[in-house]
Amino acid sequence: MEAEKQREWGPKAWAHLSSVRNQSPLIQCITNFVSMDLTANTLLSAGASPAMLHSPNETPDFTPQVHALYINVGTLSDNWLPAMKLAAEIASKFKKPWVLDPVATGASGFRLQACLDLISLKPTVIRGNASEIIALANASVGFTKGVDSSHDSTDAVEAAKSLANSSGAVVAVSGAVDFVTDGNRVVGARNGVPMMQKITATGCAVTALIAAFVAIDPLQALEATASALAVFGVAGEIGMEMARGPASLRMHLIDSLHGLDQTTVISRVKITTS
Amino acid sequence: MEAEKQREWGPKAWAHLSSVRNQSPLIQCITNFVSMDLTANTLLSAGASPAMLHSPNETPDFTPQVHALYINVGTLSDNWLPAMKLAAEIASKFKKPWVLDPVATGASGFRLQACLDLISLKPTVIRGNASEIIALANASVGFTKGVDSSHDSTDAVEAAKSLANSSGAVVAVSGAVDFVTDGNRVVGARNGVPMMQKITATGCAVTALIAAFVAIDPLQALEATASALAVFGVAGEIGMEMARGPASLRMHLIDSLHGLDQTTVISRVKITTS
Amino acid sequence: MEAEKQREWGPKAWAHLSSVRNQSPLIQCITNFVSMDLTANTLLSAGASPAMLHSPNETPDFTPQVHALYINVGTLSDNWLPAMKLAAEIASKFKKPWVLDPVATGASGFRLQACLDLISLKPTVIRGNASEIIALANASVGFTKGVDSSHDSTDAVEAAKSLANSSGAVVAVSGAVDFVTDGNRVVGARNGVPMMQKITATGCAVTALIAAFVAIDPLQALEATASALAVFGVAGEIGMEMARGPASLRMHLIDSLHGLDQTTVISRVKITTS
Repeated sequence: MEAEKQREWGPKAWAHLSSVRNQSPLIQCITNFVSMDLTANTLLSAGASPAMLHSPNETPDFTPQVHALYINVGTLSDNWLPAMKLAAEIASKFKKPWVLDPVATGASGFRLQACLDLISLKPTVIRGNASEIIALANASVGFTKGVDSSHDSTDAVEAAKSLANSSGAVVAVSGAVDFVTDGNRVVGARNGVPMMQKITATGCAVTALIAAFVAIDPLQALEATASALAVFGVAGEIGMEMARGPASLRMHLIDSLHGLDQTTVISRVKITTS
Repeated sequence: MEAEKQREWGPKAWAHLSSVRNQSPLIQCITNFVSMDLTANTLLSAGASPAMLHSPNETPDFTPQVHALYINVGTLSDNWLPAMKLAAEIASKFKKPWVLDPVATGASGFRLQACLDLISLKPTVIRGNASEIIALANASVGFTKGVDSSHDSTDAVEAAKSLANSSGAVVAVSGAVDFVTDGNRVVGARNGVPMMQKITATGCAVTALIAAFVAIDPLQALEATASALAVFGVAGEIGMEMARGPASLRMHLIDSLHGLDQTTVISRVKITTS
Repeated sequence: MEAEKQREWGPKAWAHLSSVRNQSPLIQCITNFVSMDLTANTLLSAGASPAMLHSPNETPDFTPQVHALYINVGTLSDNWLPAMKLAAEIASKFKKPWVLDPVATGASGFRLQACLDLISLKPTVIRGNASEIIALANASVGFTKGVDSSHDSTDAVEAAKSLANSSGAVVAVSGAVDFVTDGNRVVGARNGVPMMQKITATGCAVTALIAAFVAIDPLQALEATASALAVFGVAGEIGMEMARGPASLRMHLIDSLHGLDQTTVISRVKITTS
């Protein structure tokens, strides 16, 4: 039964990646300064078309034309927050999928409130680490140690389900094992290597990849999210075979994502349905 | 005749690169957040001295001291636009060459108007892809798919000539083949590899390199622009021989740009005069 | 006598690096856009936990929780300066060490005044190149050629001592040889390779590393600063053995920093007490 389900996920992930490559969805990214380079290169390597536009002067013209929107609060400030909210509102109005990365949401009361406000604008997917998802579910000011996860992701399953149910979003939790839930089903994505956490912005980059995958399969956001997490993880595993440290892993990961073929994706993707 | 002309361009490109290395021109860059790292590293690898200063509080002191100014609207916002205009005004007043990259100019009415306003401040060179140059020439709100080119660059020759004539700038159009025109002459720069389009900010980086080349040969902006495009393309070609994907190409391109020697430049530069 | 002192510094540098790895200090970085990626990756590779938070809306909640603060004025603007000052004030109030990188301080009157204002908020360490430290010591508007050093660092020893005495900070000066002084003692850090200056933001990154080292040894800021400079330099030396140019050096440097072991650090660190 489990093996049978596993056999379905590899082709599904490959179908998602192939669609991204063929359709080259346009992804608007309003993301933090640290991650912009890696995020854009991740999207390009997967075959998507990134556009880093954030100004409220442009969003009314531009957001209706994109295939998905990605919002990341990593280097949040009060002059970027209105831009994020406006873009999220327009995306929702035009039925565009949009994805939220609530980086370090517990770092301040301002940031937590900003994330809660954004979640009220109906993201399609929320992806964070365990601390972030727990903080959002608790909706109280906690303390996140930087942008790293200080909880095991398994601790966060209940929090994720709760957040999915209250928000209507698919919720993904990154950690030693990644989980994705719509509040009912829980899917585990078991690819990736620990050293990816020693590269800044890999979490941000995979959230952007989720936006690209959801852009080409918006009605199956849970499946698209699991595929994106697994495909990124496979690229990391292959990259790790050539890496000497985090910086060469970063390079080989992107190269591998660009070069992934059908046989590799189908044989290596590990997604499990519990 | 054509072969004879070709023989002139290799030594000219090498002379430009050598001058940049020897004179290390100071290039002020007011550019988008995504491209800052690659842009600074491209300038350093070519021997120039990048300075990412954008504040209107600093420009009156600083811009008169630079050798060229580079403005890129990739992550435009209303609080950066006055800084761009002020720097362009000061550059023009002090007879410093300045170069504009009108990234995704058709993405919004705000952005198109911003680019037109900047062009009225007399850039020395404008470099874009075919969609961007056509949008500027048409001066009407079009739609650019992200920051990628969705037109072949050959389609844009007439638009580029028109823009060059109306603006007084040298106009460069990137694509499968790059073109440079002053409205009268059209020069083709035929180096580079397709995978460079899978690396974010290569277009931004080569525009910064144009600024460095124009800085050391301001009276021959067309020739300096063609040289910069060709030299960057040669670095990409050599990088591609070692690359496994877009991220390793990015690394090898910069390494190659740093290491280019006279024999390589002269033998590989392909610039054609039509 | 000198050899005996040298024998003490290798184990000291290793102890510092080991403590960073074990304690993973949380370092708030308010730094320039160009350097954010390399800075975060440098801190992660050394074992520290970077957090790029700059908003005055967050600083009152967040800064009291960090182990050190890093401020860098590279892409200064008038809307970031209050954030920098507020964070520095809170860090001082909560007895958190904080480190200033006064990038291109002589580029404008605005920037020089900003740096002087920040220095009045009692940084633990100031690190710059010779031009920057001389400009600060002179406290008059000079001209820094971009962010490169146009003075030899040896020229700056007296300026550094003067600045250390007037500010109460430990002052580090980067150059062919790095120096660190508390106004009385002067220590030389002699690791590193010239090509590191051809990579943008290596100066910014090593200042962030100083913040991490000072975070775990705040009472010996001079020693922690010298260790950080030497350890980063050793990583550069090992990286250079594999590099083909500045971009591959950047990668190998970070990989090497992540992989440094006790034997390598102790045998290669060159710190001299004059």
